[in-house]
Amino acid sequence: MSREVLSYAEEKVEKARAVLRELVSLNTEVKNKALLYCAELMHDKRDFIKEENAKDVEYAKSLGLSSALIDRLVLNDKRIDGMIKVLKDVAKLPDPVGEITKMWTLPNGLRVGRMRVPLGVIFIIYEARPNVTVEAASLCMKSSNAVILRGGKEAINSNRALVEILREACKQAGFPEDAIQFIDRPEREIVWELLKMEGKIDVAIPRGGESLIRAVAENARVPVIKHYKGVCNIYVDDEADLNKAYHIVYNAKVQRPSVCNAVENLIIHRDILEEFFPRMAYILGKAGVELRCDEESLKVIKSDPRLSFVKAIPAKEEDYYEEFLDLILAVKVVGSLEEAIDFIEKYGSKHSDAIITENYTKAMKFLNQVDSAAVYVNASTRFTDGNEFGLGAEMGISTDKIHARGPMALEELTIQKFVILGNGQLRDNVGVPEDIMKDLF
Amino acid sequence: MSREVLSYAEEKVEKARAVLRELVSLNTEVKNKALLYCAELMHDKRDFIKEENAKDVEYAKSLGLSSALIDRLVLNDKRIDGMIKVLKDVAKLPDPVGEITKMWTLPNGLRVGRMRVPLGVIFIIYEARPNVTVEAASLCMKSSNAVILRGGKEAINSNRALVEILREACKQAGFPEDAIQFIDRPEREIVWELLKMEGKIDVAIPRGGESLIRAVAENARVPVIKHYKGVCNIYVDDEADLNKAYHIVYNAKVQRPSVCNAVENLIIHRDILEEFFPRMAYILGKAGVELRCDEESLKVIKSDPRLSFVKAIPAKEEDYYEEFLDLILAVKVVGSLEEAIDFIEKYGSKHSDAIITENYTKAMKFLNQVDSAAVYVNASTRFTDGNEFGLGAEMGISTDKIHARGPMALEELTIQKFVILGNGQLRDNVGVPEDIMKDLF
Repeated sequence: MSREVLSYAEEKVEKARAVLRELVSLNTEVKNKALLYCAELMHDKRDFIKEENAKDVEYAKSLGLSSALIDRLVLNDKRIDGMIKVLKDVAKLPDPVGEITKMWTLPNGLRVGRMRVPLGVIFIIYEARPNVTVEAASLCMKSSNAVILRGGKEAINSNRALVEILREACKQAGFPEDAIQFIDRPEREIVWELLKMEGKIDVAIPRGGESLIRAVAENARVPVIKHYKGVCNIYVDDEADLNKAYHIVYNAKVQRPSVCNAVENLIIHRDILEEFFPRMAYILGKAGVELRCDEESLKVIKSDPRLSFVKAIPAKEEDYYEEFLDLILAVKVVGSLEEAIDFIEKYGSKHSDAIITENYTKAMKFLNQVDSAAVYVNASTRFTDGNEFGLGAEMGISTDKIHARGPMALEELTIQKFVILGNGQLRDNVGVPEDIMKDLF
Repeated sequence: MSREVLSYAEEKVEKARAVLRELVSLNTEVKNKALLYCAELMHDKRDFIKEENAKDVEYAKSLGLSSALIDRLVLNDKRIDGMIKVLKDVAKLPDPVGEITKMWTLPNGLRVGRMRVPLGVIFIIYEARPNVTVEAASLCMKSSNAVILRGGKEAINSNRALVEILREACKQAGFPEDAIQFIDRPEREIVWELLKMEGKIDVAIPRGGESLIRAVAENARVPVIKHYKGVCNIYVDDEADLNKAYHIVYNAKVQRPSVCNAVENLIIHRDILEEFFPRMAYILGKAGVELRCDEESLKVIKSDPRLSFVKAIPAKEEDYYEEFLDLILAVKVVGSLEEAIDFIEKYGSKHSDAIITENYTKAMKFLNQVDSAAVYVNASTRFTDGNEFGLGAEMGISTDKIHARGPMALEELTIQKFVILGNGQLRDNVGVPEDIMKDLF
């Protein structure tokens, strides 16, 4: 670690911390104005964004990156419109800062309340998609947090251009542009250094592949909110409406298999295996999904000539732990709801899990007992997303057990402090003794 | 690390995890019944508690521990009554588990809600006072968490006796007694081992001296919620009601100086220095408080013959960072509210800070801008305590910036997950294509 890299990291943090007090004092009006200026300037500077983005795309092609990765990198007009929409949407959301969520009066007249305040300096580390820059910055702006952005090196020109626009618009709107800090150097050491700055960085949020997130979690001395992976499960109960099940499983697997809220394990109650699974396998097979089956479910496929075209192989134990991010689905047969919940607890990643059932009691039991960030009844797991849930955007998804679970948006970027309004209250009524007071000159 | 110690630690965690699903499904009634049984049995077994406690006290005396430490260890009838009261109080508090704090409906009819659920397995590491055993266990019982208790080795007989009673009462009440696990062996390695069990221990809460807490934070791979120390500040503004100030500062320093919410730094506006400080110094001097003063405030004392009896010495820079936990107070003179807030940000520990002022605008500014767990106007910082705030008890105090700030009680031992109630909703309405459906056998 060179001293120069260290002082680069320190400078970014100092600049971010220096505006925290100003940020927490800003009126919502100013924050919204800044967000709308950002949207406007982004519209005006589309060509600049596309030019800078083209450099990244060209470089990615020269490296021979996969077309899927390159696709995630591209900023075309549609995607720029998407970022503009995020800025406008976040401007419309209620401001969480300063909200008194509760206030009560103690017998001694002291009023105790809880007030939402920003977390402080948020360090977000992410990979290819440049739109994360705008989502993260806009949520932090609205919640009066400062943000340090560290995108992937493949997107560095795009991200730099976006940050330049955001900061310029902030400046015009009277919003402290130093609230948005961008790491525009590639050294990984900068990340490790920032992750050690306890008390200077209030929380780190890594987004990306599991290996990136594990590296961040292992190197951090600052709190980290994260999810390693999304091994989502759908349990089709023996009292399921099978027609709902076909569509939900199809949607959760096929509509976009490369994302963390896509389903990876299909759990089927034994009593409906014969009726449900051949048809489900037919549908998935037609959609090009490969099935990794336990013995029972594999037998169903292999014994049905109508399913000879379906790619189905025996599942290994480790398949059930795997986030395929692809047109692959592991299949498990169980004898009861309890077995399904046991399976989810063992193999799942506490991300998003669904039950398909018409039975009220089983639905409630699943909701209560499955310990995941998002627990569904009769819907596709693909809805686990800040925007889909109506939160405007998301900073990331947490499968941790503290601070926040599921998509993190404005409220999750705040914390409640106690505010106490008194008029001279003393603990146990112990004031200055009278014999001292009476001698007071 | 011996294998045997490791398997001891693992066994405790396995037992705790094994009852999590049962815990989350318990009715409030069962939990309250168990808490009241615990209270009853504790009353019935007073003599047993006192006998076991006597062993600890005797051992502590043989070690020559300070009388203050020994005092914290003693369980007499009054303190046993205090523990019984905690159990009864926690039984009366509303059950946080299962609370739906919000629920909204998306345009597609999907209902999305946030439900409070337990954190899971909580590992609490604490020092001398055995009543922490009962506070922690009762809060965890009510919030459906399992708890692993690791008290100080000075209190091991007392803690073991208390846990025995709690577990026995739980059993009688039909509450899974394995929710309360007690580390009844002294090896420190057990603690380090447990702190590494990511995904098995959901959160660790250390309570005690700063060095214990730092050791825990540095060795942990699991999330830790903590406060290192309480460097609390009181700022006496130039528009303060000085009579309130005398009593509040006296209360916050003298009523119980050895605790984290006692005041350590007194910040005085220059314009009232001459009027306020001689009297305040007189009062504090009479109470035996030593003052560590900056140049200006020291001059006030030294130039006033009426204050010749006051112990006052020049403050060193490091005094302002120090948690004295004693009858010592550091004094700083400032020229403005802003300077006072700067001082608190630099030297404080984000625990509890107060302003004494009659000026509304300055009070609001202080509340908004001071970034501490508890921010006071015109009251003693000594109220920062779960019981004082009306939360029934406390699991500890957090000065962290995520999950919880200030005293942690029932709500802070829960986290909200998303629950989603659907009737077949699909992301982007993508269901099984019609051409596949129509061929379905």
